Amino acid sequence: MIPDSLKESLSAFEVADAMTNGIRKVLSDAEIISCPLADGGEGTVEALVHATGGYKVEVPVHDPLMRSIKASYGILGDHRTAVIETAAASGLALLNNQERNPMITTSFGTGELIADALNKGIRKFIIGLGGSAINDGGAGMAQALGVALLDEKGKDLPKGGEALVNLAEINLTGIHDALKSAEFTIASDVTNPLTGANGASRVFGPQKGATEEMAAFLDKCLSHYASVIKEQMGKEIDTIAGAGAAGGLGAGILAFCGGVIKSGFPLIAELAKVDEKLENADIIFTAEGRSDLQTLSGKLPLGVGKIGQNYRIPVFLITGYAASGAEELLKHGVTCIMPFQNGPMTLKESVNDAYNLIGQTTANALRIFLAGRKRINLP
Amino acid sequence: MIPDSLKESLSAFEVADAMTNGIRKVLSDAEIISCPLADGGEGTVEALVHATGGYKVEVPVHDPLMRSIKASYGILGDHRTAVIETAAASGLALLNNQERNPMITTSFGTGELIADALNKGIRKFIIGLGGSAINDGGAGMAQALGVALLDEKGKDLPKGGEALVNLAEINLTGIHDALKSAEFTIASDVTNPLTGANGASRVFGPQKGATEEMAAFLDKCLSHYASVIKEQMGKEIDTIAGAGAAGGLGAGILAFCGGVIKSGFPLIAELAKVDEKLENADIIFTAEGRSDLQTLSGKLPLGVGKIGQNYRIPVFLITGYAASGAEELLKHGVTCIMPFQNGPMTLKESVNDAYNLIGQTTANALRIFLAGRKRINLP
Repeated sequence: MIPDSLKESLSAFEVADAMTNGIRKVLSDAEIISCPLADGGEGTVEALVHATGGYKVEVPVHDPLMRSIKASYGILGDHRTAVIETAAASGLALLNNQERNPMITTSFGTGELIADALNKGIRKFIIGLGGSAINDGGAGMAQALGVALLDEKGKDLPKGGEALVNLAEINLTGIHDALKSAEFTIASDVTNPLTGANGASRVFGPQKGATEEMAAFLDKCLSHYASVIKEQMGKEIDTIAGAGAAGGLGAGILAFCGGVIKSGFPLIAELAKVDEKLENADIIFTAEGRSDLQTLSGKLPLGVGKIGQNYRIPVFLITGYAASGAEELLKHGVTCIMPFQNGPMTLKESVNDAYNLIGQTTANALRIFLAGRKRINLP
Repeated sequence: MIPDSLKESLSAFEVADAMTNGIRKVLSDAEIISCPLADGGEGTVEALVHATGGYKVEVPVHDPLMRSIKASYGILGDHRTAVIETAAASGLALLNNQERNPMITTSFGTGELIADALNKGIRKFIIGLGGSAINDGGAGMAQALGVALLDEKGKDLPKGGEALVNLAEINLTGIHDALKSAEFTIASDVTNPLTGANGASRVFGPQKGATEEMAAFLDKCLSHYASVIKEQMGKEIDTIAGAGAAGGLGAGILAFCGGVIKSGFPLIAELAKVDEKLENADIIFTAEGRSDLQTLSGKLPLGVGKIGQNYRIPVFLITGYAASGAEELLKHGVTCIMPFQNGPMTLKESVNDAYNLIGQTTANALRIFLAGRKRINLP
């Protein structure tokens, strides 16, 4: 099984556990390979650490408002690759509603996590985007890695996206030495560029607390930031698909760390060696909280469906809600979409009882599958 | 498919139709045998008329309060068997809440339906119990069939259960002549006797409008009624399992028409020739509104499960609610219990959208079954 987490309900691990219970009810001796995963967003570190037999590292860093906190990143089982979620040090969940302000929030903490890993000798990085509170184009991250962002008077810019409007000079003399030999992969499933109508500020700014005016101003700031980077570093980051993810952190990594942007799930599935685990599998179970057209735009079940298709293994998607549009998944290797409610209930009841409901639904699916498997001899 | 109806939502026919849509989505050329049924309660006439290619007869009769109404019964495809639902002429649905009063409601109309069929030459009767408004032990039915129920002064008793306390003499001289050669089968899944703590009055009286005092009094009336029948007709009806069904109508039929009480679904399945229809079937789909411990006490899905078990055909139960206890059905031939919601929703939404949801759920189950059927070749 390769479930995603269910937002505000169960972690991918808990979902896998619930599914295991369901399967055991029907086939007590089933061979179950549990591979709770993520698609680059929330749960990516946890999933990859678990799947590869790695470990987590906790580091003192700064949150989006430069307050001291502790945040974790993962080191994979190869002991050579770090996996870092933007949300860990620069996440929206670290702020209360009043504190959300993308004009001043910074990706500094994410840069500190990268620096810590570099200092430990790590040279391969997977950066999972999603859930960030920032709109600074990764400027804070760059600052944490020793890049000096200066105004016309040669003074360090303050943190946050709005300050970038005054960026005049980028000084790379202090940049972390190890970055030269480091390799970055950005796991992202959004294709938004850094600026413009589909850019970071206008599309994702509002959910981070930006008014329309703020979003327009931040878009100008990032545009200026990109033009200075182009002028002084010769790097075009403005129009690259995915550069707008996580408040432009994607763009910042491309500019200061190098690297490539890859679709989240395939990357993570590869790192987790999902393919090897599928040998001889009869069924793949996957899960998510809500299945709809968004699932089609690259979420975990779509990726799992494609794997199922490749290996000709049926994929059963257990879901909290099968919205219209979800049936498109049936064209991409998903065999069936099974909502897990056992009767009329509220969203709250569904969330609260998800663990048991998922178990029951998994058991049901397995029973039907086995009924199909059986050779039936009419008397 | 052998679905039951979904109370206050869809008829068994509509459920079968919804399931057909679902199956067609997955297998456009599937051979579908649609056999919407019932377990003796609501929908029995409709189902049996349809399954046997019979027809319905509408007759002017009297409702439980002796008002003129029209009511229907069925004549099966053999043209020799009538199927009559208690609810048709003596049903609770014919009264509004204020009118419910088991002290005076009568089964007279059901007797009129029987008389009409006798007059048409019918000699085989199936009586489906359930949903009745009466508590008269079938006294009204007997009166409609020419039985005189007299008090100490030789006067006809008024209609209704409470009058039975004054029963002194049963005069059979006017009883319908054809009853002698008629054969009655009562379809019932309750095993309540006529009187006592588990009897008609105490168990079913309250839902027909009886207060606790009324129920106690009606129990006394039925007890007296049974003792007079025993004394004057030599028939013991008080303690027979099922005699308490439909306000004691079961007992009345046993006393005045003869006959046997049979479990509803097996009887109906036999009449509908379900066995013949199952030859070569790969799956049986069934459905009901709510699956719980009551289902285990003889409702349609239990019966369908047993048939599936006999023929070794998997039975997929689509349901509006899978309550705790329903999983016991898995021990009785039901392969899986699939609730049909596609996400959190209210009961009302579930009822209103049942048609589409059942289609989707049926399609899902079929997809999983087919995934099991397929031989899977790993690359």
